[in-house]
Amino acid sequence: MKPSYGSSVVRHASLALLFLLLAPYAAYAQDGPSSEMFTVNNTWMLVATFLVFIMHLGFACLESGMTQAKNTVNILFKNTSVISIGLITYAFVGFNLMYPGDFSIGQFFGFAGVGLDPGAEGNTVAYADGAYTYWTDFIFQAMFAATAATIVSGAVAERIKLGSFLAFTTLYVALIYPIAGSWKWGGGWLDQMGFYDFAGSTLVHSVGGWGALAGVILLGPRLGKYANGRIKAIAGHNMPLATIGVFLLWLGWFGFNGGSVLSADPELVSLVFVTTSLAAAAGVLGAMAASWGIQRKPDLTMILNGSLAGLVGITAGADVVSVNAAMLIGFVAGLIVVASVIFIDRAHLDDPVGAISVHLTCGIWGTLAVGIFSADHSFVTQLIGVAAYGVFSFAAAFIIFYGVKAAAGLRVGENEERSGLDVGEHGMEAYSGFRLVD
Amino acid sequence: MKPSYGSSVVRHASLALLFLLLAPYAAYAQDGPSSEMFTVNNTWMLVATFLVFIMHLGFACLESGMTQAKNTVNILFKNTSVISIGLITYAFVGFNLMYPGDFSIGQFFGFAGVGLDPGAEGNTVAYADGAYTYWTDFIFQAMFAATAATIVSGAVAERIKLGSFLAFTTLYVALIYPIAGSWKWGGGWLDQMGFYDFAGSTLVHSVGGWGALAGVILLGPRLGKYANGRIKAIAGHNMPLATIGVFLLWLGWFGFNGGSVLSADPELVSLVFVTTSLAAAAGVLGAMAASWGIQRKPDLTMILNGSLAGLVGITAGADVVSVNAAMLIGFVAGLIVVASVIFIDRAHLDDPVGAISVHLTCGIWGTLAVGIFSADHSFVTQLIGVAAYGVFSFAAAFIIFYGVKAAAGLRVGENEERSGLDVGEHGMEAYSGFRLVD
Amino acid sequence: MKPSYGSSVVRHASLALLFLLLAPYAAYAQDGPSSEMFTVNNTWMLVATFLVFIMHLGFACLESGMTQAKNTVNILFKNTSVISIGLITYAFVGFNLMYPGDFSIGQFFGFAGVGLDPGAEGNTVAYADGAYTYWTDFIFQAMFAATAATIVSGAVAERIKLGSFLAFTTLYVALIYPIAGSWKWGGGWLDQMGFYDFAGSTLVHSVGGWGALAGVILLGPRLGKYANGRIKAIAGHNMPLATIGVFLLWLGWFGFNGGSVLSADPELVSLVFVTTSLAAAAGVLGAMAASWGIQRKPDLTMILNGSLAGLVGITAGADVVSVNAAMLIGFVAGLIVVASVIFIDRAHLDDPVGAISVHLTCGIWGTLAVGIFSADHSFVTQLIGVAAYGVFSFAAAFIIFYGVKAAAGLRVGENEERSGLDVGEHGMEAYSGFRLVD
Repeated sequence: MKPSYGSSVVRHASLALLFLLLAPYAAYAQDGPSSEMFTVNNTWMLVATFLVFIMHLGFACLESGMTQAKNTVNILFKNTSVISIGLITYAFVGFNLMYPGDFSIGQFFGFAGVGLDPGAEGNTVAYADGAYTYWTDFIFQAMFAATAATIVSGAVAERIKLGSFLAFTTLYVALIYPIAGSWKWGGGWLDQMGFYDFAGSTLVHSVGGWGALAGVILLGPRLGKYANGRIKAIAGHNMPLATIGVFLLWLGWFGFNGGSVLSADPELVSLVFVTTSLAAAAGVLGAMAASWGIQRKPDLTMILNGSLAGLVGITAGADVVSVNAAMLIGFVAGLIVVASVIFIDRAHLDDPVGAISVHLTCGIWGTLAVGIFSADHSFVTQLIGVAAYGVFSFAAAFIIFYGVKAAAGLRVGENEERSGLDVGEHGMEAYSGFRLVD
Repeated sequence: MKPSYGSSVVRHASLALLFLLLAPYAAYAQDGPSSEMFTVNNTWMLVATFLVFIMHLGFACLESGMTQAKNTVNILFKNTSVISIGLITYAFVGFNLMYPGDFSIGQFFGFAGVGLDPGAEGNTVAYADGAYTYWTDFIFQAMFAATAATIVSGAVAERIKLGSFLAFTTLYVALIYPIAGSWKWGGGWLDQMGFYDFAGSTLVHSVGGWGALAGVILLGPRLGKYANGRIKAIAGHNMPLATIGVFLLWLGWFGFNGGSVLSADPELVSLVFVTTSLAAAAGVLGAMAASWGIQRKPDLTMILNGSLAGLVGITAGADVVSVNAAMLIGFVAGLIVVASVIFIDRAHLDDPVGAISVHLTCGIWGTLAVGIFSADHSFVTQLIGVAAYGVFSFAAAFIIFYGVKAAAGLRVGENEERSGLDVGEHGMEAYSGFRLVD
Repeated sequence: MKPSYGSSVVRHASLALLFLLLAPYAAYAQDGPSSEMFTVNNTWMLVATFLVFIMHLGFACLESGMTQAKNTVNILFKNTSVISIGLITYAFVGFNLMYPGDFSIGQFFGFAGVGLDPGAEGNTVAYADGAYTYWTDFIFQAMFAATAATIVSGAVAERIKLGSFLAFTTLYVALIYPIAGSWKWGGGWLDQMGFYDFAGSTLVHSVGGWGALAGVILLGPRLGKYANGRIKAIAGHNMPLATIGVFLLWLGWFGFNGGSVLSADPELVSLVFVTTSLAAAAGVLGAMAASWGIQRKPDLTMILNGSLAGLVGITAGADVVSVNAAMLIGFVAGLIVVASVIFIDRAHLDDPVGAISVHLTCGIWGTLAVGIFSADHSFVTQLIGVAAYGVFSFAAAFIIFYGVKAAAGLRVGENEERSGLDVGEHGMEAYSGFRLVD
């Protein structure tokens, strides 16, 4: 039942009395948010959580749509596994590595123990400034965590052994992502230095992108991709699926960036919605201009990657740049991603879905853009952050992939790669009943 | 931390004191919503925003699923471009054309200047009765804007030149849609006359539908569609994709209609959810009855269009009609859309996805239904609004399409149409690796 | 405009005065939630409503992806119809059968009359503890209702007559589901006995699963499925579609379980998000372990069903078990679903999508798990509930299917089954233009 707002009698209460009566609000301002504000903040963070969850479906659709039909089951299996492994490992170790409370090795490493525990004050304690529960905090961050490993998935698609990929994923998402994350979001050394990464251009996307680069180098290109010194285009098999993936990623980004406000603050969340949307749209236009100009045709995969480029680009500074800057950042990201895709292909690094260009190249761009477009942040500090994450993530990914390669091999056999991983690894076809080109 | 709700002592405070203590609420009722109410309203409007965003994916899926495989990349490219162009142009000019504040030419046209500016009071100012931020206002309306152009996309599919379509879209979404919108939602002449269109049966759907009709007339039918005086059915290539599209549109409509309350008002938003859902469901049953009755078979595409017909039909009056009226409006819309599809086809107007029937025919029906089922609104005024939007939108779309045709041509060559726009315009196939029927 | 929180003067108001000033909160605690809390609760319940709506798209994708291409239109038609019939019948009779207020036959049956009526106090009345509107209450429950019938759809796919299925659905969703639901959620005899089913492991999933079992028994297996005493695997035709379906179901479950809190209570809703997510993830790992172990291959369809198994399993107790228990419940559900699929196939019960294993077997497991992992609930009472719902649902479904069979037949002709229901029932192909294997 909605309460009445008092009678006309009290509307004429004296001003002096009104001031006194406002005291409860003063009290709450001291003690924390009101019960209502706590509830709306928490609700928004849970909405953001399910939006970030959707991104895992987005990646699954994008990656399978952009690759060949014969490897589709394999990619879907990987993406379903990654979110599951990511959630479980984050519950056991990741969350407490990323938010250790106290660091035990400098400001580089800390661990708050195994498993989830809302602590003595229980679940009702407001955890952050925005005031939401411990469980909300965990599940929002857990949805983020698996993203980094999923980014790797697309780059190494169509030739990596399933078991080896899952082993890499488990280690990368359980240990490397959260340790790296603790440096900034856990209050570690880069946070104290003033490095800024609002929602993870570097902490999520570049960390994933560096892992992708390490994997691509160690795996080598798909058979025939660079045979006889020529670059062979290997077309994706399902453009509607890829497009669904990109739109779902864009949708999920409203939670990825909007939830990174860590409250339902109307000003900040709505600004973030605007900067995020306009950067994505400008990324499409930038990639359209670049690909129509350079490649002389309107390339669907390029504008799809352009929207993702704009999104990755705005992620580091979505709350601190102007809307005009957001459009510029997105547009430039759209130009850059086209150039990066072409460059990486010419460098004979075989990345079937353009993951390195989208997530690493544009992640770096977005992080540096904060230093360019926000007066409050230092370009040099941003550069230091980019470099530090690059060294750590690439080295860690390389070592893990190398170890897995030594232990079990990374790559499927040539026959299996030719006939497809779906039959080879899973004994199953993605499109049973359809006639495919041999 | 959740505040305690006072001790047992205060629970026995005298009634007189309680009345005095309620004064803060009276104060807020005068000064505006509480900080908490502001936050929940704003949060709901942002949820509605991402729901409307999903509709663009819905259109992309529906349109590509309902057309031939050889034109899929082209449709996906168009839909990805339209949302991007729509957002950017709405930021530069559309928003300030649609909500000009002051009109400069009668109550027909006004322009508040180029670009976005939250104004002197900043982003924290509550903008509308519902109290949300300037940025929220912009991004919610921006997501709407591109919808009108997307509606055109489906009707002109499979034969329009990409560049010509994008030129039309840019002008239609940047200028025509917002000027037309200002007449009602911007406080213009139709608003002052008492015309009612809650969420856009006319302002969005009919405006899009009239544009579609103009395009279809100027383009002419697809090759072979009406050869030798017979109507050739050209089947859509992917029914799961079309179905995904319709469900996503229905989903998005919860934000399209639910957000049009412009606050999180529990009564109105929940009523709108009910009228919207029941109208969509009744539309399915209406179309099922009509198509099973007339065509003697249960036609999937007809019930899909039936749900959209119900949704378009309820959009004008979702907050002012009873739930029983909503079911009737939806059911009739489902009947009408089947009749309209058949009629338009017999008139040799080639609309591959039924966009004109869904958005124009049912948009008119829904707008007039407000005059029938709501005692507070005049049927005649509704009719005037329908006619005014018809004349303006059709004329504007016709002129733009005509100008584009004169400047660059509208239609691809016959060979390209036969082999498909995907290869012709984009040099790319949507389903690489699949064997298609020639 | 955001209100100021008072001046520094009032921050020093005496403690005694503060206590008095907190009295309004005490007043609201007696009279009901604040206007703000009412709004945020209602908003969350509407978000949960659209999430549950998404599950119907999830089922449509999963069921069509897991079956043959030639029956796709038929499945999509069924799923679009079921949600529509479900919403309309729930408005006319279901809601008032499920929440009768007073029971007329023991605590087994009651009916509050035909149609929707917010009652004398109007829509503004808070309906439940969580305080949301009558319309919110209806539409949230209505989205649930159709789920039970949709579960049946997958199990009887590829051979049931369309009209016969729709007749069954109408009766099952309009009468059986709500009467069964009233026993617990309507305050009936099982509720009074202490039976616990938070969000419907039994009330929704098992009720659907028993209906599926009855249908499968009366229909018999698809042609050739168990010919010559051998089990023939009939592969699904579209794994990306099936995967999209599962992710959308998982997404929808955030509303299915999260909304079943019936308020936006931060503690409970966030806990439910965590238990739900971790159970789904653990279900994937459980099914992966079982299928990789037993079948010696990583089976995508098994891990997809594993996630659903975890979700169904946690649904009965998502708010009362620990997160560790949730992971265990999910993991065991993942093991069980693999065993159940194999067992049911060996029993020559032909369930093309594994609906009985996911919804019935794991629904029973989840309901019993509440008795195992929650100290507050009795295993025996849970068992009684499971049995009661089993007897009633199975008997009712059997009788309805039997009656429909007698009146109109259940099964399409052999030729139609061989050539596919799409052409036979709908005169339409799902993938026009694609070459399919004969």
